[in-house]
Amino acid sequence: MCRWLAYSGSPVNLEDLLFKPAHSLVKQSRHARLGSEEMNGDGFGVGWYSRRRPRPGLFHSTHPAWNDRNLRELSALTWSRLVFAHVRASTGAAVQQTNCHPFRQDHWLWMHNGLIRDFPTVKRDLACSVAPDLFSLIEGSTDSELFFHLALTFGMKDDPPAGVAAAVRFIEDTGRQHGIEYPVQMTVATTDGETTWAFRYSSEGASRSLFRSVDISAVRSMHADDSFLEDLSADAHLIVSEPLGDLEGAWEEIPESSCLVVHGPDAEILPFAPLAA
Amino acid sequence: MCRWLAYSGSPVNLEDLLFKPAHSLVKQSRHARLGSEEMNGDGFGVGWYSRRRPRPGLFHSTHPAWNDRNLRELSALTWSRLVFAHVRASTGAAVQQTNCHPFRQDHWLWMHNGLIRDFPTVKRDLACSVAPDLFSLIEGSTDSELFFHLALTFGMKDDPPAGVAAAVRFIEDTGRQHGIEYPVQMTVATTDGETTWAFRYSSEGASRSLFRSVDISAVRSMHADDSFLEDLSADAHLIVSEPLGDLEGAWEEIPESSCLVVHGPDAEILPFAPLAA
Amino acid sequence: MCRWLAYSGSPVNLEDLLFKPAHSLVKQSRHARLGSEEMNGDGFGVGWYSRRRPRPGLFHSTHPAWNDRNLRELSALTWSRLVFAHVRASTGAAVQQTNCHPFRQDHWLWMHNGLIRDFPTVKRDLACSVAPDLFSLIEGSTDSELFFHLALTFGMKDDPPAGVAAAVRFIEDTGRQHGIEYPVQMTVATTDGETTWAFRYSSEGASRSLFRSVDISAVRSMHADDSFLEDLSADAHLIVSEPLGDLEGAWEEIPESSCLVVHGPDAEILPFAPLAA
Amino acid sequence: MCRWLAYSGSPVNLEDLLFKPAHSLVKQSRHARLGSEEMNGDGFGVGWYSRRRPRPGLFHSTHPAWNDRNLRELSALTWSRLVFAHVRASTGAAVQQTNCHPFRQDHWLWMHNGLIRDFPTVKRDLACSVAPDLFSLIEGSTDSELFFHLALTFGMKDDPPAGVAAAVRFIEDTGRQHGIEYPVQMTVATTDGETTWAFRYSSEGASRSLFRSVDISAVRSMHADDSFLEDLSADAHLIVSEPLGDLEGAWEEIPESSCLVVHGPDAEILPFAPLAA
Repeated sequence: MCRWLAYSGSPVNLEDLLFKPAHSLVKQSRHARLGSEEMNGDGFGVGWYSRRRPRPGLFHSTHPAWNDRNLRELSALTWSRLVFAHVRASTGAAVQQTNCHPFRQDHWLWMHNGLIRDFPTVKRDLACSVAPDLFSLIEGSTDSELFFHLALTFGMKDDPPAGVAAAVRFIEDTGRQHGIEYPVQMTVATTDGETTWAFRYSSEGASRSLFRSVDISAVRSMHADDSFLEDLSADAHLIVSEPLGDLEGAWEEIPESSCLVVHGPDAEILPFAPLAA
Repeated sequence: MCRWLAYSGSPVNLEDLLFKPAHSLVKQSRHARLGSEEMNGDGFGVGWYSRRRPRPGLFHSTHPAWNDRNLRELSALTWSRLVFAHVRASTGAAVQQTNCHPFRQDHWLWMHNGLIRDFPTVKRDLACSVAPDLFSLIEGSTDSELFFHLALTFGMKDDPPAGVAAAVRFIEDTGRQHGIEYPVQMTVATTDGETTWAFRYSSEGASRSLFRSVDISAVRSMHADDSFLEDLSADAHLIVSEPLGDLEGAWEEIPESSCLVVHGPDAEILPFAPLAA
Repeated sequence: MCRWLAYSGSPVNLEDLLFKPAHSLVKQSRHARLGSEEMNGDGFGVGWYSRRRPRPGLFHSTHPAWNDRNLRELSALTWSRLVFAHVRASTGAAVQQTNCHPFRQDHWLWMHNGLIRDFPTVKRDLACSVAPDLFSLIEGSTDSELFFHLALTFGMKDDPPAGVAAAVRFIEDTGRQHGIEYPVQMTVATTDGETTWAFRYSSEGASRSLFRSVDISAVRSMHADDSFLEDLSADAHLIVSEPLGDLEGAWEEIPESSCLVVHGPDAEILPFAPLAA
Repeated sequence: MCRWLAYSGSPVNLEDLLFKPAHSLVKQSRHARLGSEEMNGDGFGVGWYSRRRPRPGLFHSTHPAWNDRNLRELSALTWSRLVFAHVRASTGAAVQQTNCHPFRQDHWLWMHNGLIRDFPTVKRDLACSVAPDLFSLIEGSTDSELFFHLALTFGMKDDPPAGVAAAVRFIEDTGRQHGIEYPVQMTVATTDGETTWAFRYSSEGASRSLFRSVDISAVRSMHADDSFLEDLSADAHLIVSEPLGDLEGAWEEIPESSCLVVHGPDAEILPFAPLAA
């Protein structure tokens, strides 16, 4: 199990975003409250976009987020309008920077909570289906990075929901050929630097938790003392594995088998299912 | 809060000792059951003695013990008759190898669970009381390493209980000059490679937990299915922050304000108090 | 031996500054050309100022600069008007983040190439002379960080050249009491975020190399094809352990026993000597 | 370029083996004398066999060998009759523990100096030819680890020279299909814990350097003052990328296109060529 967060909106300071909320992502690295594993201490990663360059920056570390000084330093002096952050609990793959989310290709980022079940069994079939020009760009050994490159292989850059749906279908088909009943468990976020797509899906219909912030200006007027929300712009969107605080009315669960699309101030929820055969 | 373990007896394999018990020290690094902080993920250390060289080996890492592959590898091929191991939860000092326990001088080892309260306030007075020839041997920034060097300054190599008692007295006196009510909280283990001394003490009389294994042969005959105990020799001694399993009768709490002395098959518990003025 | 660089001027991209020059600081971490030790692979550090917060950011790593991905990532998306960077060759102290330069107190930075000779011999006398409120802020074990805190003790924040001169005098006096002929070898840079002071001095009068960029607009007009210089603003100042390229006329050696003061577009060189008794 | 060492003989202390020779492997990590790249600071690894367990231990680190304290500690208290050690200079793949040599499967070890040319171009074709049960055991991203798994796929465990010859042939064929003239550059060592096979080969017939110790007892009688050789048993064999000292008559170059086989006190050199089609 992992925990992640995707932010878009006016430029936010990363220390405010990652450390200051009552139940911040960094606190979740020590004490997650939802899900099966309360600790996410097997490394972390942050991806952020600058207005000056299309390619986002990545900071990956194999240390727990809660005691990494460089994360705190970098965060204190970085502002960004689009941020992905992820704290990792390994499901078996090595603790190394190339296994830390978010993963990047060109100006795209990808992060994942969940797993491809019985990954050692299906890994070869999946890997050898990645497009030849993408194969050697895989740097780590996780199911999540391979999933990303399958989605890219299946056209994600042109149509993200379709590319992800095709990849999920392919992983499910491959898994079932190997006798795996529920091959996919996922909450995934991906972005091209402009639009963010967040997916909640699992083969068994019991997916890991996923929430989004509701209209922040409305909530803010009711809860004048929540300093973190006050600083967020009215058009900010947060998508999170679990809420960053206990403020009633601030968070809304994203339904099973759906895809949240966020573009600027707009957000919509679409149904999501593996691509039909 | 930290967790530690001191073993002496017939040579034991470190993987058996550190990983295999039901509630092993490595498991305690994720989920300690006693004490205020359940996670000890801010680095760890192992010190072990070989018959061939007087100076013990040290393996220190800033990664959590539960995901450090080198610890597992080293443990699998190392046997030792005297082992100190420690998983750390930082109380403020940096996560770095020189802050990992056990600490070493010559053939002595030292490890500590607890703290010197308001350490920044008293650090200078304490540090500048360390003997000149020992001062520059301090490599890290913890209260625990400084405590060790104070005990050495006060003659610990000649008489460990007296040296520690004098150091505790000095730390308490110094703390109280700065208005600190309860300056010392400690369980400490130290060894010269032959004898192990384990102390349980706190200025407030409410010390961190400390246990020792009781007569292992007696326990073993009653619980034939506990594979870890079966492998231990009859003369083995284990001193631990918390029991490695739930076996009734296997563990005995070490009383407040006492010092357990283990030498070969023998063990005795002495009262311990800061040196009288 | 270490290598360092101090930049001030219009905001510069850190990747341009640290990686792109023909003989960049990151290249110097592998192959320094001046000085006794050609490799500086024992960690590195970068300190940079943002317009939005007075306290600079710090990125410290124990890996060699040439293979640290996070340094490259952070650099690619960071622009700053005042940057300190340092690649380290340990003279004995542990390779750990708290021993990486630059060091920071409040909004001040400090970095050092050189050493306090026979440091273990004089460390206690020097450390116990640090002001009580500063003592516990020392986090690492280097001579360089202690030197910084001595300069702060001797009033560096009010008058940097005087504070450094008093610290040098004190270190020389202390060293000579212990029979050390040439106690100090230094090139040092320090800044409050507005002004940079760079010192070149050694007790033996044979100091490590130190250079500064000469008037960049003049040089630029003569060498139109040096892309790195082209990007620098006319008022930029670079102070470096060794030149970043072989461009004739671009670099000027800073004389022995002097202090270069850079403030905005202005720079002046003052004589520097240990404070007279 | 990397540097490696393979030892077999009477149990040797690892500190004596890796640190003490005049031009030890750890010194080679800073200053190699032969070959194109003098520094091997991108991590290292040691594999060693114990008499008590068939599977060798592995210690991998991403820090340079010259400043890794744990390597020194582990070495000081470890004796082994069969040791592989490797210092790495990355040719592109990430600096991470899973990219450090030696690699292990069951009781086999493998290490490599050289490269598969244009590896990104051929990686997918090579990887997807690895046997299905071996594919998911690949943990890192290097050409060297993939080469190992190809040799295993081609039967190396049954007949090491034949398995390696078939893998080399397959890599050369694959490379040439992609227009790569000289696909393979290698010195490789592999062992099952009893016998060591060392290969020197390159497609262009200009392989990286490889040496072996000649009869140690004879050499020892002539050079009474070389303390490292004195400690070695008469039946010891050392195979090295470059000699550990300048002792005349102590080292012999292994010819191009050959395979040295060492078993107990015996050694023989066989011709080596890629398997004929």
